[in-house]
Amino acid sequence: MRVAVDVLGGDYAPGEILKGVAQALLTEEFRVDELLLAGPEALITAKLREAGVSDIPAVLDTDQVIEGHEKPIEGLRAKPKASVVLCVGAVKQGAADGLIAFGNTGATVASATMGLGMLKGIRRPGIAVTLQGAHGPFVLLDVGANPTPKPNHMFQYALMGSAYAEDLLGIERPRIGLLNIGGEATKGNSVLKETHAALAAGDLNFVGNVEGNHLFSGEADVYVADGFVGNMVLKVVEGFAEFLVRAAREQGESVREALRGMVGAAEFSEVGGATLLGVDGVVLIGHGRSKADAVLSALRAVRKDVDKGVNRHIVENLEAHREEEPAAE
Amino acid sequence: MRVAVDVLGGDYAPGEILKGVAQALLTEEFRVDELLLAGPEALITAKLREAGVSDIPAVLDTDQVIEGHEKPIEGLRAKPKASVVLCVGAVKQGAADGLIAFGNTGATVASATMGLGMLKGIRRPGIAVTLQGAHGPFVLLDVGANPTPKPNHMFQYALMGSAYAEDLLGIERPRIGLLNIGGEATKGNSVLKETHAALAAGDLNFVGNVEGNHLFSGEADVYVADGFVGNMVLKVVEGFAEFLVRAAREQGESVREALRGMVGAAEFSEVGGATLLGVDGVVLIGHGRSKADAVLSALRAVRKDVDKGVNRHIVENLEAHREEEPAAE
Repeated sequence: MRVAVDVLGGDYAPGEILKGVAQALLTEEFRVDELLLAGPEALITAKLREAGVSDIPAVLDTDQVIEGHEKPIEGLRAKPKASVVLCVGAVKQGAADGLIAFGNTGATVASATMGLGMLKGIRRPGIAVTLQGAHGPFVLLDVGANPTPKPNHMFQYALMGSAYAEDLLGIERPRIGLLNIGGEATKGNSVLKETHAALAAGDLNFVGNVEGNHLFSGEADVYVADGFVGNMVLKVVEGFAEFLVRAAREQGESVREALRGMVGAAEFSEVGGATLLGVDGVVLIGHGRSKADAVLSALRAVRKDVDKGVNRHIVENLEAHREEEPAAE
Repeated sequence: MRVAVDVLGGDYAPGEILKGVAQALLTEEFRVDELLLAGPEALITAKLREAGVSDIPAVLDTDQVIEGHEKPIEGLRAKPKASVVLCVGAVKQGAADGLIAFGNTGATVASATMGLGMLKGIRRPGIAVTLQGAHGPFVLLDVGANPTPKPNHMFQYALMGSAYAEDLLGIERPRIGLLNIGGEATKGNSVLKETHAALAAGDLNFVGNVEGNHLFSGEADVYVADGFVGNMVLKVVEGFAEFLVRAAREQGESVREALRGMVGAAEFSEVGGATLLGVDGVVLIGHGRSKADAVLSALRAVRKDVDKGVNRHIVENLEAHREEEPAAE
């Protein structure tokens, strides 16, 4: 098992990414041949040595990176040797089993989609994140790969999310909920209505529309949303959690610590990363603000994704439910 | 100043609504002639007497109510004497200066829109809620009146929200942010892009797109969203706050109390209510789960709305910025 790591993307790259990598090696959680690093070789070697690592992993040498503010497609065109592109290439060629990138999400999605291609039958990728709710972990997707999906894309998110929750969270026949602003089947825009109709007629364990106030209360194991709503929800929760932790300063250190622990389990920024589902390969999207500890969690997460082999399961799910899928427009 | 109160709508109606009304009277915050109650007269009289109120406010006697699960238009058609309809009628006829309803939000919006009409020039109403962030209160609208607004509706939300924040929160030239999934002007769907273009070219204090993680960090004073996203965001925050308060049980009572206080200021369910902007009258939408204390807060809020006379300001704002408004499609 080998993970390609984009060392250059992310708010605290390359310093914190390399600290996380160093931790992974020094604790022997990862062997040196289990990592493949994309970034400037001299800098990587120097930083890892500094951190006490003697045996340096293989490096895909580059100093090109797609910055957070760059438009993904333009960035990819201008920088053929961008660190994320090299990671995708390594997975495509079999030099790595999965990759993790902490930089420009759009560039990671575009690069992976173009470089790896889609899983057979899947039309659009979706980003799945696992959060902790009142009754344990749940999956929310899509959190930003496709802000304007069609009903058949949404249906496939349900399929992919179901396979993911089974494999990664060990939940049998995961309950699928459609994130909406009302419980009735007639709520929301036409995409939500059509998706609801297809899921209700189909064979997945669909529990219907779920409103936002029940996201954390355990009404479903997988919440399906379009990439705009999913991203908004995820970021609002993140911002609200941060706001509370800051406000807790005035309440004293014990309250702050307790709160920090509670929101950490629910917040994406504390989770290892999100998985890009639908592409033909394992791609983990790390949070841009990851520091060394989060990098280490992300490395664990991508290893788990590789080990579980959810992609085969997704393709099987798709075959089994092909008749239920709404027609492409 | 007189407020019409729908006693029959809401999860804890009529009991908690009447308890709140009783508090308002017993504490002399409201005089008896400042309230007008819509609901079953005998029951209202009995309950208020029971609570220690001797001088009973005037009642619009009815036992018709539009339940939370009813479709607004169908409910309004079937129940011409629904409590919310009587409240709207009282405002329309000048028997009350404003109304508050805790029941079916869609029915309140539809009834107010049809019964009061729109403010001159305003095309669609929007629901504005005030929450507490890191740097004080901010306004979020629309939180559910119109899930699929056009750019000109969104532009008018900005105008209305600006007037509202000036009048109700005392903020001069409020900073207007467009809730979006990225900071760049090109982010989001076509409605967001067109709204962004119009606001950027116009004369309101527009600060651009704001991502969800900055909702509580004080980047803007007024956040504009479509009714789907606004409602989802509000409910997710509510659900997350509830989840945290429950989880805090395990952390001990002091943590729980501290958290309860912190999330209360940020959460809609603890705020008095949301204001329906754009209709020709003062309409407060109370949270469905309001208990007596929240009912009292809501009564205070509607009085403040009446006193501040934001509607005149909205019409003036509209006149001043008419040239900037995107064309109706």
